[in-house]
Amino acid sequence: MTERPIRGTTRLAAVIGSPIRHSLSPALFNAAFADAGLDWVYVALEVAPGDAGRALDGMRALGLGGLSVTMPHKDAVAALVDHCTPEAAALRAVNCVVPTRDGLVGDNTDGPGFLDALAADAGFDPAGRRTVVVGAGGAARAIVLALARAGAAEVVVVNRTADKAHVAAALAAAQGRVGDASSIEGAELVVNATSVGMGDGAVPFEPDLLRPEQVLADIVYHPSPTPLLAAARDRGVTAIDGLGMLVHQAGHAFRLWTGQDPPIAAMTSAAHRELATRR
Amino acid sequence: MTERPIRGTTRLAAVIGSPIRHSLSPALFNAAFADAGLDWVYVALEVAPGDAGRALDGMRALGLGGLSVTMPHKDAVAALVDHCTPEAAALRAVNCVVPTRDGLVGDNTDGPGFLDALAADAGFDPAGRRTVVVGAGGAARAIVLALARAGAAEVVVVNRTADKAHVAAALAAAQGRVGDASSIEGAELVVNATSVGMGDGAVPFEPDLLRPEQVLADIVYHPSPTPLLAAARDRGVTAIDGLGMLVHQAGHAFRLWTGQDPPIAAMTSAAHRELATRR
Repeated sequence: MTERPIRGTTRLAAVIGSPIRHSLSPALFNAAFADAGLDWVYVALEVAPGDAGRALDGMRALGLGGLSVTMPHKDAVAALVDHCTPEAAALRAVNCVVPTRDGLVGDNTDGPGFLDALAADAGFDPAGRRTVVVGAGGAARAIVLALARAGAAEVVVVNRTADKAHVAAALAAAQGRVGDASSIEGAELVVNATSVGMGDGAVPFEPDLLRPEQVLADIVYHPSPTPLLAAARDRGVTAIDGLGMLVHQAGHAFRLWTGQDPPIAAMTSAAHRELATRR
Repeated sequence: MTERPIRGTTRLAAVIGSPIRHSLSPALFNAAFADAGLDWVYVALEVAPGDAGRALDGMRALGLGGLSVTMPHKDAVAALVDHCTPEAAALRAVNCVVPTRDGLVGDNTDGPGFLDALAADAGFDPAGRRTVVVGAGGAARAIVLALARAGAAEVVVVNRTADKAHVAAALAAAQGRVGDASSIEGAELVVNATSVGMGDGAVPFEPDLLRPEQVLADIVYHPSPTPLLAAARDRGVTAIDGLGMLVHQAGHAFRLWTGQDPPIAAMTSAAHRELATRR
């Protein structure tokens, strides 16, 4: 579990973004490499808006073993890699770059990470279920796509701006539609995919809309519980925060880069330890 | 002394070269950062010949805090940085890149590192002394320049190829000249700046030319002692291997990047530990 000394043989992976210094990813990935006994190290690199192209060239020239991508570069990187996976192409957003013989492949592991967390932390399989996603930003779109691919009966997008809601709902094709707050009551799974609740003390919708037989997934992980999660649990709802999605999307990247199964428990512990230093 | 966990705030420095996996620099610098309590990490990055330009662009885009440069990129980088120090310009070779407000500054710390090692390990000050440098490659030229700048009375270059010897000797201006093996007997300091003795069991010149009152510095550090060093010590000569130069040139880079005094003892211990794994 202890981190290995860094030597000439150590491979480098990194996350690029701006701002990036508060990223949990170095803690997550270094814990994963240590637990798996891999001679890798992972750092956060501040890359200014507009510099994603130079950063990718740097990744090529410097031989990085993997690259995570976060705000504001996810869209730019999708246009800059040599190939995109179908998920990344559909979302036009990349959160994970994998070096291959055929060049840099851009993938998006947010949706698969969300589904894994939903299974692991809430025992929920969206196949055949009615689902609602609140929000229409990058995370929301990744979740809409993942729910549709997992066979959800319907994926209803609820968002203040109708235009963005339609773009997000279109990712779910025939399973997708735009709804409003009243859609929440009829859903089996409700996802808060907005950042509301992240330090603002607010809720993205009225918690009284929730019923005990529903599952609520919040993508916010700090603070935990958010006001929404706390209110949902008070009402007997099965409610999970966003840490599982964060860990599992990193787990998918770990697998893509190293070919090994990610040590999820070690990564989760590392995330909790790192968050504990921030309270 | 233990290495710190790598977090979002951790700064990255690296060495580029090819081949690079056997570099001691990660062990040296990570020990230095740990000893100084600095939140930095240092890795080795394999960069193919011809890719130094893309690697420097990568350094800029990825915001690296410092870059070491080794074979085969030292000459190319001197032409690619925004500014060179006088030493790097004279040598047309850079072993250390420092990010500044005015862009990337290329420096060469091999010569200053050599002088520091000579002072620390042999108590020798070249001012006013007769010196001989055997070899005319990159390390030899850095040492010739440094000895001249330190006020050596003469710097005689001994090399198989006369053309290269003249180029090296020119770096010492009026103090420099080209000699042959017979020059060794009259010198107060003799430097082996060739790689002879590095695993080949050979000596770069006849050890019987040495006298007990001389100082011999070998730039080779593995194995230690080299056959030349062993023969010199048998003859009562004060003889030092190349590890001090390696550590002190890294110490100069550490100071340039962090503004702090390098923890030489911790770096030396780390180098010995790393070398011990290779026997």
